[in-house]
Amino acid sequence: VDKSHRYRAIEAWAVPGISEIVAGDIIEEIIWEAVDSLSAQEPERDLREGDIVVVTSKIVSKSENRFIPVSLAAEHLKHETVRIVARRARDDGETLIVENSLGIVCAAAGIDKSNTPDGSALLLPEHPDGSARAIAAALRQRSGQKLGVVITDTLGRAWRLGQTDCAIGAAGIRVLNDLRGTIDAGGKPLASTITAVADEIAALADLVKGKSGNTPVAVIRGLAEYVTDDLDEEGAASIIRPSHEDMFRIGSEEAYAQGFSAGVAAQRGLKPGESS
Amino acid sequence: VDKSHRYRAIEAWAVPGISEIVAGDIIEEIIWEAVDSLSAQEPERDLREGDIVVVTSKIVSKSENRFIPVSLAAEHLKHETVRIVARRARDDGETLIVENSLGIVCAAAGIDKSNTPDGSALLLPEHPDGSARAIAAALRQRSGQKLGVVITDTLGRAWRLGQTDCAIGAAGIRVLNDLRGTIDAGGKPLASTITAVADEIAALADLVKGKSGNTPVAVIRGLAEYVTDDLDEEGAASIIRPSHEDMFRIGSEEAYAQGFSAGVAAQRGLKPGESS
Repeated sequence: VDKSHRYRAIEAWAVPGISEIVAGDIIEEIIWEAVDSLSAQEPERDLREGDIVVVTSKIVSKSENRFIPVSLAAEHLKHETVRIVARRARDDGETLIVENSLGIVCAAAGIDKSNTPDGSALLLPEHPDGSARAIAAALRQRSGQKLGVVITDTLGRAWRLGQTDCAIGAAGIRVLNDLRGTIDAGGKPLASTITAVADEIAALADLVKGKSGNTPVAVIRGLAEYVTDDLDEEGAASIIRPSHEDMFRIGSEEAYAQGFSAGVAAQRGLKPGESS
Repeated sequence: VDKSHRYRAIEAWAVPGISEIVAGDIIEEIIWEAVDSLSAQEPERDLREGDIVVVTSKIVSKSENRFIPVSLAAEHLKHETVRIVARRARDDGETLIVENSLGIVCAAAGIDKSNTPDGSALLLPEHPDGSARAIAAALRQRSGQKLGVVITDTLGRAWRLGQTDCAIGAAGIRVLNDLRGTIDAGGKPLASTITAVADEIAALADLVKGKSGNTPVAVIRGLAEYVTDDLDEEGAASIIRPSHEDMFRIGSEEAYAQGFSAGVAAQRGLKPGESS
């Protein structure tokens, strides 16, 4: 009996031994060395066909020298903000939800002030799908195996408390699994389900890596069906909902205020935006 | 050297052998029998201290006889809808986002038409945190081990394509991990991060269980730190963002339209809602 086909099983582990990343570090080499050193002691922890390597965006940003002085964080926030989605005063400051330069809707444009050297903050990687491709290409070449790579960031949600890790970069994996048209166990077509595989992988990896910053890389084994031959598949940018499909493009209060102004202007016989 | 403390590792597997659930089935007994039968062949697949059992809400609904005739789905949708959050015409119908009777913001109030017997659809469990507590209590009693239970549903996201599984019921686990006040690897306080652990667990389990309906239960080993002594901790309902903190309480178009009407009325010297 081939047990492996009776039910699906996944293993995932954090890769120990990755020390503080600095600007200019070749991250794919550092990951490779850490994996190599782990598998020298525990042979089952090598990289195998179909494994997925999940990397916290923070260390990618560090290696790509995306440091900024924390004193300039407000100016960078303005620059990284494509548009303000919603803002709300809090007791201890302000919640600011924006669309950033990557198209991602998130708090504070993804600028990160934790786990950074004193006085510094970090921007997100400039091209996370490109960074994922570079890491995947190097690790595939080093290991001789078909691997996937996901780069993660921690994002909030509109209607649920807390954050989950999501994929902001990906290479060598199918990021969305479109099940529309497939059939369920009873032979009926599945409802319109598209599984955000790369985001679920990022969430899984967060549980393994934790938030302390000591283990920014995890390996997942058991999801080879999502690993692609090609590194040129659509990356994590394709998970972002296009704006014409976005029913929550701005916050409810912001939309109400815009509508109110337009209603006042219309009633006065003016076009919205025209001054009286 | 105690390897287990060098880095974190997780194992997760789908539990085979759970056949179609019908109304009145004692789901905790069926899960226990399936686990028991698996572990008879593979002893490492028993239930151990700190394991988390993840159950697709669909089978909980079936066992609790939450079937409705599919012909009455529209009426049930109205009944399950506490308020409409947003609606938008699609080529092939309508996207309707509502807050359902559990407080969850989701499409079509969570009424499910796939993987159900012909002519039927399914409502969500009536009290998923209570269902999770009952399952956890029974499995703890049967196994003699401290276990956690998560009940999952598949939810969309405002700004990202595709769906991920989230926790709609939970017992015996800490659903949110509040890291505010803890320090990062550099000794600095972590930014305001609250990890939605139960949702990340649901996402992980979805990758293992898949969507076919053949394996609606998964076991996760390696996250014992989130498993609580008590079954009376706050359940998955506590993950739902309270409405006074919800910046996306209604869709942008809906809010704009409300604001427009109010602006017109205000300019005419009428209170909103007052007829001219």
